[in-house]
Amino acid sequence: MSSNSFGKLLTVTTFGESHGPAIGCVIDGLPPGIAIAPEDFRQDLERRATGRTRHTSARREADEVEILSGVYEGMTTGTPVALLIRNTDARSKDYGRIADQFRPGHADYVYWQKYGVRDPRGGGRSSARETTMRVAAGVIAKKWLAERHGIRVRGWLSQLGEVTPEGCDLSVVEDNPFFWPHAAQVPALEAYMDALRKSGDSVGARVDVIAEGVPPGWGAPIYGKLDGMLAAALMSINAVKGVEVGDGFASVAQRGSEHRDVMRPDGFESNHAGGVLGGISTGQAVRCSVAFKPTSSLRIPVDGLDIHGEVVEVVTTGRHDPCVGIRATPICEAMVALVLMDQALIHRAQCGDIGEVTPRIPPGPVEGDG
Amino acid sequence: MSSNSFGKLLTVTTFGESHGPAIGCVIDGLPPGIAIAPEDFRQDLERRATGRTRHTSARREADEVEILSGVYEGMTTGTPVALLIRNTDARSKDYGRIADQFRPGHADYVYWQKYGVRDPRGGGRSSARETTMRVAAGVIAKKWLAERHGIRVRGWLSQLGEVTPEGCDLSVVEDNPFFWPHAAQVPALEAYMDALRKSGDSVGARVDVIAEGVPPGWGAPIYGKLDGMLAAALMSINAVKGVEVGDGFASVAQRGSEHRDVMRPDGFESNHAGGVLGGISTGQAVRCSVAFKPTSSLRIPVDGLDIHGEVVEVVTTGRHDPCVGIRATPICEAMVALVLMDQALIHRAQCGDIGEVTPRIPPGPVEGDG
Amino acid sequence: MSSNSFGKLLTVTTFGESHGPAIGCVIDGLPPGIAIAPEDFRQDLERRATGRTRHTSARREADEVEILSGVYEGMTTGTPVALLIRNTDARSKDYGRIADQFRPGHADYVYWQKYGVRDPRGGGRSSARETTMRVAAGVIAKKWLAERHGIRVRGWLSQLGEVTPEGCDLSVVEDNPFFWPHAAQVPALEAYMDALRKSGDSVGARVDVIAEGVPPGWGAPIYGKLDGMLAAALMSINAVKGVEVGDGFASVAQRGSEHRDVMRPDGFESNHAGGVLGGISTGQAVRCSVAFKPTSSLRIPVDGLDIHGEVVEVVTTGRHDPCVGIRATPICEAMVALVLMDQALIHRAQCGDIGEVTPRIPPGPVEGDG
Amino acid sequence: MSSNSFGKLLTVTTFGESHGPAIGCVIDGLPPGIAIAPEDFRQDLERRATGRTRHTSARREADEVEILSGVYEGMTTGTPVALLIRNTDARSKDYGRIADQFRPGHADYVYWQKYGVRDPRGGGRSSARETTMRVAAGVIAKKWLAERHGIRVRGWLSQLGEVTPEGCDLSVVEDNPFFWPHAAQVPALEAYMDALRKSGDSVGARVDVIAEGVPPGWGAPIYGKLDGMLAAALMSINAVKGVEVGDGFASVAQRGSEHRDVMRPDGFESNHAGGVLGGISTGQAVRCSVAFKPTSSLRIPVDGLDIHGEVVEVVTTGRHDPCVGIRATPICEAMVALVLMDQALIHRAQCGDIGEVTPRIPPGPVEGDG
Repeated sequence: MSSNSFGKLLTVTTFGESHGPAIGCVIDGLPPGIAIAPEDFRQDLERRATGRTRHTSARREADEVEILSGVYEGMTTGTPVALLIRNTDARSKDYGRIADQFRPGHADYVYWQKYGVRDPRGGGRSSARETTMRVAAGVIAKKWLAERHGIRVRGWLSQLGEVTPEGCDLSVVEDNPFFWPHAAQVPALEAYMDALRKSGDSVGARVDVIAEGVPPGWGAPIYGKLDGMLAAALMSINAVKGVEVGDGFASVAQRGSEHRDVMRPDGFESNHAGGVLGGISTGQAVRCSVAFKPTSSLRIPVDGLDIHGEVVEVVTTGRHDPCVGIRATPICEAMVALVLMDQALIHRAQCGDIGEVTPRIPPGPVEGDG
Repeated sequence: MSSNSFGKLLTVTTFGESHGPAIGCVIDGLPPGIAIAPEDFRQDLERRATGRTRHTSARREADEVEILSGVYEGMTTGTPVALLIRNTDARSKDYGRIADQFRPGHADYVYWQKYGVRDPRGGGRSSARETTMRVAAGVIAKKWLAERHGIRVRGWLSQLGEVTPEGCDLSVVEDNPFFWPHAAQVPALEAYMDALRKSGDSVGARVDVIAEGVPPGWGAPIYGKLDGMLAAALMSINAVKGVEVGDGFASVAQRGSEHRDVMRPDGFESNHAGGVLGGISTGQAVRCSVAFKPTSSLRIPVDGLDIHGEVVEVVTTGRHDPCVGIRATPICEAMVALVLMDQALIHRAQCGDIGEVTPRIPPGPVEGDG
Repeated sequence: MSSNSFGKLLTVTTFGESHGPAIGCVIDGLPPGIAIAPEDFRQDLERRATGRTRHTSARREADEVEILSGVYEGMTTGTPVALLIRNTDARSKDYGRIADQFRPGHADYVYWQKYGVRDPRGGGRSSARETTMRVAAGVIAKKWLAERHGIRVRGWLSQLGEVTPEGCDLSVVEDNPFFWPHAAQVPALEAYMDALRKSGDSVGARVDVIAEGVPPGWGAPIYGKLDGMLAAALMSINAVKGVEVGDGFASVAQRGSEHRDVMRPDGFESNHAGGVLGGISTGQAVRCSVAFKPTSSLRIPVDGLDIHGEVVEVVTTGRHDPCVGIRATPICEAMVALVLMDQALIHRAQCGDIGEVTPRIPPGPVEGDG
Repeated sequence: MSSNSFGKLLTVTTFGESHGPAIGCVIDGLPPGIAIAPEDFRQDLERRATGRTRHTSARREADEVEILSGVYEGMTTGTPVALLIRNTDARSKDYGRIADQFRPGHADYVYWQKYGVRDPRGGGRSSARETTMRVAAGVIAKKWLAERHGIRVRGWLSQLGEVTPEGCDLSVVEDNPFFWPHAAQVPALEAYMDALRKSGDSVGARVDVIAEGVPPGWGAPIYGKLDGMLAAALMSINAVKGVEVGDGFASVAQRGSEHRDVMRPDGFESNHAGGVLGGISTGQAVRCSVAFKPTSSLRIPVDGLDIHGEVVEVVTTGRHDPCVGIRATPICEAMVALVLMDQALIHRAQCGDIGEVTPRIPPGPVEGDG
């Protein structure tokens, strides 16, 4: 029941502080026979990496993943896979001034209140650096889902501050630093971010993730529902303030006659549900949205408190993202992939004897593919 | 790891189908010495009950709670408390026609796909009848939170279809059948619901819950965060499609300079965070919003499929709510209360040795109280 | 993490006190499609029942099992199965005198110390009445193991006080009230028990259980080992003070050259390991032994303490077994069956993709079959 | 639900193979404010270390513990503590010959059957090297138990092959390489072990552990009983075949009038129960015994099988202990300490509001102290 673990059969435990010696994770429950090599982690870690563009924080980590266990001759053996990344670019001096300060909008004050002590170096455990290990673990889950079930998990930015996409073409998402699904808007986004950075302020972002190819039947009612597990996993990411499945909050103003997705032998007619009904996958694309708040580390001065209860002026001068949501895209993908793989194993355990159940309805159209 | 259980130290396991002999729950981990009597459950069960007004389903259950264990001379003993409610008003004949049909927007098809079999009587396990037991368990959690920590958990409807409150006065919420925080709108809502019911259609709803009095320090990073646990608990409720904490999706378009809640010795200046930072309570009111989709049980005919893969016309004639979100208010409250009590126990386990940590910042203003 | 639950994927939660309204359990994680009827429970409940012979306690319960959920048209549906037994023969007046007394060897004092309160009626939650639900749940597990995997789980008494079997013929175990594997000794055991009961004293017992037909590969190292799970499950039974797997404590004085079970293509040559190596089943019969202490409820007076700290004389006049271990045989079987079924599901989740692995070694000879 | 994790609130997850790059663990749930330094682990790791005397395996590891996380300025912060030990003395060539062989009495065959693949280097994950991390984690638990509750956990060898102690003076246990409680026998044990090693054979051992100072009330009935958790924890250690609490299997032949420990205002008169009744600590010393089988790695040739199903001759030439039980003493202590600390936290969570409950009975005499 470690609070630093998630997943029931595929359990990921992470550890490490932003400026400690290392961060790492232990991934337990992986089936044997999955090919894993250190270089497999590179692509997604780079997608997540700070320092990729001028629009994200300047911290540069090599982020070299060392596989400490669970892999023999390049394949998982069924024993726990431990991954380790040394912290090589932890400039603690950047943070020295704030050791005794509680920055508004940060976890400083609450860690202090909870534990009576806190590691102030770079946010300690509350730093988004922890999400590196989620991405690494997610790489294995994505691989297994793709190879074993033909599932593809992908995310994109569906809102940046007040800007929304003017179109949705998922094929362009990886071609720009914003994971943005409409190429024509990218120059405007560059300008938007430059102005924002110049102002010293920050904005929030919205990330969408879909998983295509998920078969019907995954998710374990009532308290292990697929959407419930997705909500927990996504809400656990730093700076997340909201999670939607399918039409989410837009469902509130819909009529039932509009929302209910008609099933036909040749496929679902729509996907307002986001691929989940009653907590179980329908066979359609599983679709979630995640709201990221604007980061609270700003160059704009603000009043904070210190540990003596005195008001102090807080200015963040370290490396920070003006929009943490941008590089959260691969983190969200990773969490969705890990939840799906866990649910796949749970489903197999209870219902593994059941063959394919008929009738099976094709998924219908998928957003962003045309 | 029962998927029909939730909570880590305060664990609630529910069982029962809509039209089976009974529904019930086992609540484990309750501290000894909590006074419980069968009549304690009445008020919240009535708040949730179907049949309370013409705006909700006509099913009438006595919903008499029997306490089967864990209570001796009116007090909890520390052993599991089992609660049982017999299903007395289960008219299975209402559902006979749909035994072989998959209704769009319902869990019929996915249960069939998952288990290869399904109990079609009233939705079986996927029925919202299950939430009765959440409310019952929540009564005990609310009581403990109030008596032990002075915490008050309350909810209200913050959107009904496309209608939003024109004011927020929480003192009137219990005086109208919609849990609506603005009395002057109630007649218009009555008319709105009458028209909706006449049309045979349904709408969604949005429920807000706040918990006042939560001390700082509750919530266990990283994967046991208070907001993560709230998201899982709330998303597990039938028909929920979205969960927000604090400003939720509105945070996306905010600036960091606006969102970060300034702390002063005399209190927080705002509560955009919704009382949670880094997954830990701040001492402010914990605030969540939940999106309910419009129910899919409509008198408006729609195409469905049957178990032979043939298209059939589906019309729901049984008792169903045109807006399931209305009576979800006490369910949401219950889930918030259960999560908070669980987190209180978890916090005490790990950090029970730490006395009050200073400085402690007052919560600041609370929505709806003026 | 309910402490009244056990099993990871097949999770059994029990509730109820000896003299409360009812006892019951919730069994979650059962695969769909298992045929269950109320009469299925009868045989094992009678085997366990108090009052079966003059050698066990005179309490007579109808022990009628009501299936409250999870079964539709006689088959499990994949949702939780709740079972309920009303307490019909709870003569609380038998226990009134001891409400304020701590009986030596009982849980009275420790429940008082732990919870500050206790239900004194018949031992409350600490009564062996709770094991009724284990036996009921075990019936389903035994059935699934038999039908799905051809596994047979059976137990017998391998020691009664200082008496040990002079032979081991498992075919006679069900023909005598002692579950004794050597028919010729039964008259002597009758006389032994009569003398014991007359003396007002009690003795311990040792129960052996084997499970034949368990395939190799079940058990999840390191902390979910098959033998570790068996140890936890068996030690959780009332009055158990020791658990062995295979040769158990006799292994201490063995030489490695004797203990290691030689494998040959036509079978294992011996089974000192008891069918488990490295926490994983070998394909041989899984074999455990369990030590039951003598019950502490005696007609022989003894000093106890009362809740005021005063010494009082304690004499038990209620109905109690002079040897609780006798009717523990079906309880032990049930726990072994439940652990095995849980491990089967866990194994399928992680390793379900792997086909039969060669070479597979036949189990070799089984104790008690010739 | 990682099978490589144990403990509910104090959760230890271990990883690593005998001859992989490293072994390690993540300890989650530690209260903040515990002083920890790398050198704290030295003493118990040396007590456990292979190569300490000629009577244990010659493998020599530096076993330098690196603290990767969770400690700031020498104190735990409440975040997970990860410990890492590099494998520096892994001579894989010793094991090359057996890569395709299944050694009798080892986990080779069962890992192969379970996972369809196995890491043959030094036993891979099934090696006792994993227990190093248990000892390291146990150091922290012992420290917390001592400082917070005045509890002392200590173990000794209570049987070596067929030899039993002729006296029990726990003050001499740390003065001889056998953790033997009777100094006069040590020369004879030396001779015994020399002869054994010369013969190429091995023997089993029995380890006893007591924990003094445990307050009454720890342990969570029914399936989280203190003795049940001890049984699971101890049975999970490599080579363990039996676990007893208190008088264990000797209880079987006892009379109830003998076994029940009389309580008096000035203390318990005896401790047959081993400090646990009804799964809850009594306030007496908690006492367990553990049976270790003789190691199966022998220089005496034996038939094994290879992965093609052919019979092969197996001779172990690597470094192995003729009695693995000897250095298991600190491992058993560690597991007892970890279980106790976990139970302390669980108890505090549920019953933390209850003050000291009266009457409280003193523990009475403790074995081995005079």
